[in-house]
Amino acid sequence: MRFERAAIVGVGLIGGSLALAARAAGLIGETIGVGRSEANLAVARRRGLVDRTVRDPAELGAVDLVVLAVPVRSTAAVARALLPRLAPGAVLTDVGSVKGEVVAAMEALLPAAAAFVGGHPIAGSERAGAEAARADLFQGARCILTPTARTERAALARIRALWEGVGARVDEMDPAAHDRALAWVSHLPHVVAYALVRGLQAADPGFAALAAGSWRDASRVAASRAELWRDIFLANADAVLAATDAFAAELERLRASVRAGDATALLRLLEAATAASDAQRRLAGPSAPRHGGGGDDDDGGA
Amino acid sequence: MRFERAAIVGVGLIGGSLALAARAAGLIGETIGVGRSEANLAVARRRGLVDRTVRDPAELGAVDLVVLAVPVRSTAAVARALLPRLAPGAVLTDVGSVKGEVVAAMEALLPAAAAFVGGHPIAGSERAGAEAARADLFQGARCILTPTARTERAALARIRALWEGVGARVDEMDPAAHDRALAWVSHLPHVVAYALVRGLQAADPGFAALAAGSWRDASRVAASRAELWRDIFLANADAVLAATDAFAAELERLRASVRAGDATALLRLLEAATAASDAQRRLAGPSAPRHGGGGDDDDGGA
Repeated sequence: MRFERAAIVGVGLIGGSLALAARAAGLIGETIGVGRSEANLAVARRRGLVDRTVRDPAELGAVDLVVLAVPVRSTAAVARALLPRLAPGAVLTDVGSVKGEVVAAMEALLPAAAAFVGGHPIAGSERAGAEAARADLFQGARCILTPTARTERAALARIRALWEGVGARVDEMDPAAHDRALAWVSHLPHVVAYALVRGLQAADPGFAALAAGSWRDASRVAASRAELWRDIFLANADAVLAATDAFAAELERLRASVRAGDATALLRLLEAATAASDAQRRLAGPSAPRHGGGGDDDDGGA
Repeated sequence: MRFERAAIVGVGLIGGSLALAARAAGLIGETIGVGRSEANLAVARRRGLVDRTVRDPAELGAVDLVVLAVPVRSTAAVARALLPRLAPGAVLTDVGSVKGEVVAAMEALLPAAAAFVGGHPIAGSERAGAEAARADLFQGARCILTPTARTERAALARIRALWEGVGARVDEMDPAAHDRALAWVSHLPHVVAYALVRGLQAADPGFAALAAGSWRDASRVAASRAELWRDIFLANADAVLAATDAFAAELERLRASVRAGDATALLRLLEAATAASDAQRRLAGPSAPRHGGGGDDDDGGA
């Protein structure tokens, strides 16, 4: 089951952590980091995340595993450049927060001799880049794989084993179902955070001096990398828009009861929310370990 | 400067913690807890938060300090019941998240022989009630006092000394300015959290099983006590509505660029948000110590 030569494309928090953990567990052999930033690749080499690094895929040699850890809308283009490097039976996988568009693009791209398995580890940290990578990032975290009718069962089993081998709890979902769920529980909170900080900046940035826990938590992910989240919002636009609209309708419902001064209606809305919150928190289960206190991209993926 | 006999009305997280810390620091003498729930008062006695407790203000005897730690729209009514118990020169203060309405109601109510100082400690925990009270809750936390032209300077100095004596960093603000700021940095994030969990519940509560850090943080305070927040939203309705509208407009701006598939415009909006987020976090300074991991009311006040 072991992969002999792996290319990790994007040696950041997610790609670098996977490389580190999978090598430590003996799940992959020679591991080559691929990236555009020489500075980040130098960090990856210094920290021993990978065996060597290249900026030009032509220098890769044949690989039997490719992990695509790049912004979701770059995934297929990056994979295309690697097609000449794939060994027979090579498996490609990704770590992106949106699966439908990525899986469709990858399945349209791949030759018969290679297999693609869509993946999304739900783990992260407030930090980014090779410097932030850590071997225990995926311990106890969920990882969603999104096979389709075209996915090779053997390739799926190998990618499942890879994630389980680094400590993740693996589930399988349909790509579209994954995207509808993530639109709510990850993409919408990011839209909200961006809108909160934009609104405060326009109203009076000085108010931030009085920020308490609720503001810090609700606005935290507005520090996330803009390019990453631009890609995610656009690649999952339909589901993100649907979730945003439904959220805005609930916001308007609360707003209307405040505007009307309707204490009875408002209390009913809030009590239902509190009950829902309890149920949702039970379903979410205990919080995954947090590797930091506020910042970037902590829903994993890329 | 020491208060000889203090009534703490509402011996919950905030009132109980203040009683505990102020007695430990020798800032108040005999301390009587006042509340409606005998169960909570029993906890307050067992934990030694106060010297004794009463449910009927008639049993209080004369007091020279009254701390009103009750839902904001109950503050004036509760104070009215205590008027016969005030010693000459007594000082009343509150801990509510809304100041304009409360300060006006209190100033309309008080006799010349008593003084009121509006206050709002920005501290808290995910827990509520006397069981959650802790002597170090206010260490390093901010406490906003909202004197007006009618506020006695001597009373203001005594309440400042009380909060500084339990470790808080005290600032003074105009009540309306306080309420506009808190509408953004505390009340709006609560509206958002309630709307998020209501929206998810209507869409598919099962999505919660995939919740990552961004969802947990953005929705956390939806577990807060509904009665408390109904009062806050209604007592600060104008500022809450203004903040909510401005937030909804930013949400719509982001939504429109996603709907249009306008990658350039979307990136510009997100990059501005990220820059604003960095500036706002610098202004907010280091996070106050957190006394728990998610739940109730953690912006303090009552």
